[in-house]
Amino acid sequence: MTDETPSFEARLKSDAQAVESLLGTLLGPAPLENEIARPAVLLEAMRHGVLNGGKRLRPFLVAESTALLGGDAGAALRVGAALECVHCYSLVHDDLPAMDDDDLRRGQPTVHIAFDEATAILAGDSLLTYAFDIIAAPETPLSDRQKTALMLALARAAGHGGMAGGQALDLAAERMAPDEAGIVTLQAMKTGALIRFACEVGAMIADASVDDRRRLRAFGERIGLAFQLADDLLDLTADAKAMGKATGKDAARGKATLVALHGQAWAERELERLVAEAEGLLAPYGARSNILAETARFIANRRS
Amino acid sequence: MTDETPSFEARLKSDAQAVESLLGTLLGPAPLENEIARPAVLLEAMRHGVLNGGKRLRPFLVAESTALLGGDAGAALRVGAALECVHCYSLVHDDLPAMDDDDLRRGQPTVHIAFDEATAILAGDSLLTYAFDIIAAPETPLSDRQKTALMLALARAAGHGGMAGGQALDLAAERMAPDEAGIVTLQAMKTGALIRFACEVGAMIADASVDDRRRLRAFGERIGLAFQLADDLLDLTADAKAMGKATGKDAARGKATLVALHGQAWAERELERLVAEAEGLLAPYGARSNILAETARFIANRRS
Repeated sequence: MTDETPSFEARLKSDAQAVESLLGTLLGPAPLENEIARPAVLLEAMRHGVLNGGKRLRPFLVAESTALLGGDAGAALRVGAALECVHCYSLVHDDLPAMDDDDLRRGQPTVHIAFDEATAILAGDSLLTYAFDIIAAPETPLSDRQKTALMLALARAAGHGGMAGGQALDLAAERMAPDEAGIVTLQAMKTGALIRFACEVGAMIADASVDDRRRLRAFGERIGLAFQLADDLLDLTADAKAMGKATGKDAARGKATLVALHGQAWAERELERLVAEAEGLLAPYGARSNILAETARFIANRRS
Repeated sequence: MTDETPSFEARLKSDAQAVESLLGTLLGPAPLENEIARPAVLLEAMRHGVLNGGKRLRPFLVAESTALLGGDAGAALRVGAALECVHCYSLVHDDLPAMDDDDLRRGQPTVHIAFDEATAILAGDSLLTYAFDIIAAPETPLSDRQKTALMLALARAAGHGGMAGGQALDLAAERMAPDEAGIVTLQAMKTGALIRFACEVGAMIADASVDDRRRLRAFGERIGLAFQLADDLLDLTADAKAMGKATGKDAARGKATLVALHGQAWAERELERLVAEAEGLLAPYGARSNILAETARFIANRRS
């Protein structure tokens, strides 16, 4: 593994700024056509849940996988913003007292702390709904065929058969520890599905070949696994300050993770293996895929 | 106003059976393509939230407004099922302790009582997500252009600028009573937007003229207002047994409604006026629109 180059960090940052700027506009005070009103407190809670200094990793993956295959950057930006709304809705709901009961997220009070539980539930609901609005809207420069396929793929990645289902399995895992296959399924759903979508969607935006789509999907699966392994390692080793949220919670809850099952040394080897596989999948694209390859390493090596 | 004819009741019932049968299939145990798994408890909670003997008024409006304009009945059925998922998700979340805190819904324990709060939150999230899946899926016999327009309209009706925003305003209204204009906006969002969508979408499914669409939309607005007035009257006058849920809650909470503001006699006159306007909007369609006209009367006269 090489160090991250300055250009990668700069690109991650500038892509994050672009998507935050768009999200700020999308969550502005003026109602769009057919919106009756934008209730101020709800909108403020949605903004609090979204405009919170996240890394914007998923929109970055959308932008870079789209760029790799020559798709429209403006479309990728809007799809990335929509995906970030889905990701942030899931954080707002996961943080609720009935779920993970977290008071802090990236060093800031979570939405139900800054507002109240009811508002946090509705802000999450509204962000999820808005994601489909953003994709379907005429401002997104994709064909209706692309938009329909994309919304179907997003719904499958986010719903009961993907992210939301993974969170349900995660809650059940606190009562009865799953076996290794159960952990793999849980993680593929809870965090893997959206990351896989973020990569695969680039091929959809670019109207690329079936082979390109399969390749980006497989790449997304590898880095999704790497993301979760790195996350589990971080929960074990990082301190709360660096993470901006509580750590050590997995062990405290006796939560089953692959790291808990196989140990830290195994996890670090597995991370290297996943990154190598991810890089291998990008090999046909040559130097054009450097940014995505660096993203895979960034995900595996992240310390916050 | 005339009595409801047996044929109307029979049609309401057979349409409800058709949509329930489809929802039962859609919420079956087998994962669809790109669903990683269907976690059993979550799926059970989704089924509990949906297959609960509701009147299926919104799918009925979709089916009948589509039939009026000669649209595809199979498409209307799937869109109706999707809309019912959105409606039921909103009930599951509204019933939560942090929101309206209701233990009973149609005489049955609400989802967070039958399961737990976390599962109820996730079941609601999953039903909302699934609505877009159902519309976008290849099984829905509409063009991609229609699907895209339809999903945009649904997102606008359901999100922060529609239903979810209306629920946020409703919660705020318990702290500070809105004026008459505020109540009208709140109700247009909370219950009106989805009912309006249910009528307007028939014109979209049928690819009807702009005039037809405007007419059905205006019809939907009238019956949405009538629905809410009837609901407020029912809360005042009905007993909990007939409703299958707690009643008298509005007054107990000092909740501002138009009925509280203007009285029962005014509300009954206003209901008649709204039904007459709704019938007037259907006049150009002649006898073909009898079912929709009866629906307007049914909504105004309902006792549960």
